[in-house]
Amino acid sequence: SMDGAPPPASPAGLSAFVAVSQLLGLTLLATTGAWLGRYRGGVAWHSPLQFNAHPLCMVLGMVFLQGDALLVYRVFRHEAKRSTKALHALLHGLALVIALVGIIAVFESHRAKGIPDMYSLHSWCGMAAFVLYLLQWLLGCGFFLFPGASFSLRGRYKPQHIFFGVALFILSITSCLLGITEMLLFKISDSYSHFVPEGVLANTLGVMLVAFGLVVGYVVTREEWKRPPLAEELALSMDFKTLTEGESPGDGSQ
Amino acid sequence: SMDGAPPPASPAGLSAFVAVSQLLGLTLLATTGAWLGRYRGGVAWHSPLQFNAHPLCMVLGMVFLQGDALLVYRVFRHEAKRSTKALHALLHGLALVIALVGIIAVFESHRAKGIPDMYSLHSWCGMAAFVLYLLQWLLGCGFFLFPGASFSLRGRYKPQHIFFGVALFILSITSCLLGITEMLLFKISDSYSHFVPEGVLANTLGVMLVAFGLVVGYVVTREEWKRPPLAEELALSMDFKTLTEGESPGDGSQ
Repeated sequence: SMDGAPPPASPAGLSAFVAVSQLLGLTLLATTGAWLGRYRGGVAWHSPLQFNAHPLCMVLGMVFLQGDALLVYRVFRHEAKRSTKALHALLHGLALVIALVGIIAVFESHRAKGIPDMYSLHSWCGMAAFVLYLLQWLLGCGFFLFPGASFSLRGRYKPQHIFFGVALFILSITSCLLGITEMLLFKISDSYSHFVPEGVLANTLGVMLVAFGLVVGYVVTREEWKRPPLAEELALSMDFKTLTEGESPGDGSQ
Repeated sequence: SMDGAPPPASPAGLSAFVAVSQLLGLTLLATTGAWLGRYRGGVAWHSPLQFNAHPLCMVLGMVFLQGDALLVYRVFRHEAKRSTKALHALLHGLALVIALVGIIAVFESHRAKGIPDMYSLHSWCGMAAFVLYLLQWLLGCGFFLFPGASFSLRGRYKPQHIFFGVALFILSITSCLLGITEMLLFKISDSYSHFVPEGVLANTLGVMLVAFGLVVGYVVTREEWKRPPLAEELALSMDFKTLTEGESPGDGSQ
């Protein structure tokens, strides 16, 4: 029993994996910045460089912040469930705002250059990821953050929320890889096959995006690293179980 | 207790999802064939059309057969574990052989046309997926199919095998989407942005690949649909548990 005992430390392996994920995440941002700064003229809003805000915002919002939002239940495993939930929703909300800025950047840049929108597989996957991510965020707030949803309804929605959360994170990373490939074939189609530094750098960014997805995916799906329910949550859950029809929503191990 | 009882039917939802996955899988193959046949001159080996064997083999091997290999523990949930395992290994082996043919097709076609190999993000992700998939298959055979690995070693490797199995399936689909994007930008870069039928068809193929991954991923990760251990496996597991140090490898619910 956990009652009265001091909160146990996080598993050692978990801390190492979380540290690696954050190093990878920061390296992702630095590499994206280096690519845009060194080879693509930098980033600016009211300028022909407006397009470059798109990859930077998408990697920051749809990958780094979305990934970190998935990690909060593992990192803050001994904090109160309510504050961890709020941080989870806040990080996803911030990710959505930054991604929206990135989407505006590409639409405005297309309009300025007379390029049609939404014709490529990258745009289809990326827009689907963004719209479904927004929907998932609204559903998550409705079910888990605001009162009203019953304990048993929350328990039934939770596995769907987790599955689609991980799926949308993967689709977001896939969309980034498609965007990298498109950008390289638009900008350096003649030299890409000669292993020029820009191509190798952007490919490496793609590999690091996959690695970030793997590490975050491993941390959030590993059974032993799931958040243990706190003593008071267990007691609460017992009360609810007695009140409801005895089903176990497992709300404590999100 | 399951002893003596007739094997229960598969959950209704599971059968529906598996049916949808197979419809999607066959549609994937048909759509790939339609794209290559209608717009890319068809598929042939000793010819300038050799390249076209690449997408067809990769969708068949690395996506359809790999996905179906993941599903066998859910579809044949009441068959003996040993035959289900053999089918799992056989389907993955077949997928590997077909993928190898697809990889030879692109290398030979590059050589014939003087195009460099392995410079693109698609080739990096695709080759990583193939090599790691081969490694995963060898490890899987070594741990689970041949005798020798102890019960407790199998139990410790199993969660890693499952995680990397799903991850490699996702990386394979991602590599296909990258390949579709590359091929469209190589072949129809001038007309892609005008929503020509070939571009829309290939984008739709990409969306269906994502849908196939989602459905297979949902079926294999849903807790309620995991393969229930058979009565004799439970008994065996109990014997081993008494013999070993009481750890639970959970081999019955793979």
